[in-house]
Amino acid sequence: MQTKKKLISNRIHELIQNTELPQNRVIEAALYSLATPGKYLRPIFTLLTAEMFGANIEDALDPACAIELIHTYSLIHDDLPAMDDDDLRRGKETVHIKFDEATAILAGDFLLTYSFEVIANASHLDSVKKCKLIHTLAKRAGAKGMIGGQMIDSQAAGSNLPEPLLLSMHELKTAALFTAALEFGAIVGGANKNELQQISKFGKDFGISFQIIDDLLDVSVPTEQLGKSHGSDEKKNKPTSVTILGEKRAREMATLLNIQAFSHLNQLDRDTSQLKDLVKTLLNRRF
Amino acid sequence: MQTKKKLISNRIHELIQNTELPQNRVIEAALYSLATPGKYLRPIFTLLTAEMFGANIEDALDPACAIELIHTYSLIHDDLPAMDDDDLRRGKETVHIKFDEATAILAGDFLLTYSFEVIANASHLDSVKKCKLIHTLAKRAGAKGMIGGQMIDSQAAGSNLPEPLLLSMHELKTAALFTAALEFGAIVGGANKNELQQISKFGKDFGISFQIIDDLLDVSVPTEQLGKSHGSDEKKNKPTSVTILGEKRAREMATLLNIQAFSHLNQLDRDTSQLKDLVKTLLNRRF
Repeated sequence: MQTKKKLISNRIHELIQNTELPQNRVIEAALYSLATPGKYLRPIFTLLTAEMFGANIEDALDPACAIELIHTYSLIHDDLPAMDDDDLRRGKETVHIKFDEATAILAGDFLLTYSFEVIANASHLDSVKKCKLIHTLAKRAGAKGMIGGQMIDSQAAGSNLPEPLLLSMHELKTAALFTAALEFGAIVGGANKNELQQISKFGKDFGISFQIIDDLLDVSVPTEQLGKSHGSDEKKNKPTSVTILGEKRAREMATLLNIQAFSHLNQLDRDTSQLKDLVKTLLNRRF
Repeated sequence: MQTKKKLISNRIHELIQNTELPQNRVIEAALYSLATPGKYLRPIFTLLTAEMFGANIEDALDPACAIELIHTYSLIHDDLPAMDDDDLRRGKETVHIKFDEATAILAGDFLLTYSFEVIANASHLDSVKKCKLIHTLAKRAGAKGMIGGQMIDSQAAGSNLPEPLLLSMHELKTAALFTAALEFGAIVGGANKNELQQISKFGKDFGISFQIIDDLLDVSVPTEQLGKSHGSDEKKNKPTSVTILGEKRAREMATLLNIQAFSHLNQLDRDTSQLKDLVKTLLNRRF
């Protein structure tokens, strides 16, 4: 896992320090936001899935990095004053605090745009696969994916979301990009249609449970350990899994969703042990 | 020209009203910003260039619409309070005024993301061409293109930009997307490498002159005719072609750049009359 993280981190920095890019304030802000290594969960999922489907890790590396770039853009824009208004991310000042709001908007726009360039440029992959990746990413990160979830979220403050809408928000805001990460691995590895479907279902269930656990941690873990402001959702009067489902039911649902997620993996005639191990670690570590 | 505008307008609305997209606030805001038809200059350039290189107009339509989607996203984000802080666009309230800031950020993010989906989905085009289009768009709209120009612009208020930096800002902020629009037509039409180069050079010179003329109009045309706030750059103490070059030199430079732009078209063994007519109309109409 450490080798994979190193690979991803090095490649991301190579991609952003690309000499063809101007050395301006947008790039500086992008590098700042990428400098504190995150957990790289999404790109690791891409690499693990690609390996599971028999691909070379090199072939999946640029698509994996593109997913992390999109994830980073979404954090920068989510932290903006008009959105979640957060000052702290991964233990550091958020981009609009460290730089300014205009730079944060543009750095997010850049990372979003650049992620598509990275895929279109990826060596080792043919154009048919690249188009499939780009289509998948745009769909999962778009209005019926991540952006759609963010819209529900930003409208939800002070309201009492019905449970199905809460789960739909988690599905769009969080699970969609995890699903894209997994689908990326499957596409690079040449998975067939049925395999791709199982992977997508796994992504949806795992992603929703991941967000529920995140909500649980937000109220139970202190700020310094969390790397972002503790209880920030609560302060903004935002509905979360905890406020809507209650802590007990939220925990039960997360566990149930993980069992369901594993059942999709069990449909695959592949060695799914690495994916399962990662999911188990995440589940245990975070409770 | 009217037929082309109608084609573009209809297709854009079809694309956004795509039943696969959720009918949420992001889509509502995107439709609002697209409802007042703009001049569709960029997509028209794509269609004219595609025709010039012998392509069917249908093959170029989705790429042309993708360019307009990107252009619209850039206007929504540019108008935000943290950027240009404009209340008026195309004679209507800007998106963050009509909706709110969070919705405007997300609607821009959506249009940017969706433009890549539209290209990846385009029928009539093979994957090799689609990848070329996506690569071109991401590059021209990115940190060494439009976003880079926007960064210079947002840092420039109150400063006295040296002339080369002013021209570089125009090149990135304005000419880059015109260039992409023209390159799109050339790619769809299967232009060769040399032809593509001449088209890119034409886009750069035309685009810079277009921005100079825009700056001239900003100080000379009243708000109601302009559709955006008259003299808004001046009010924000932003350096423009007029403040840096002076009105006389700005006019001369625009004319000179147009002559230079035409010289690139003259290198092509194609019927460039439609492109030239459009550029002439723009030049004359706007002075």
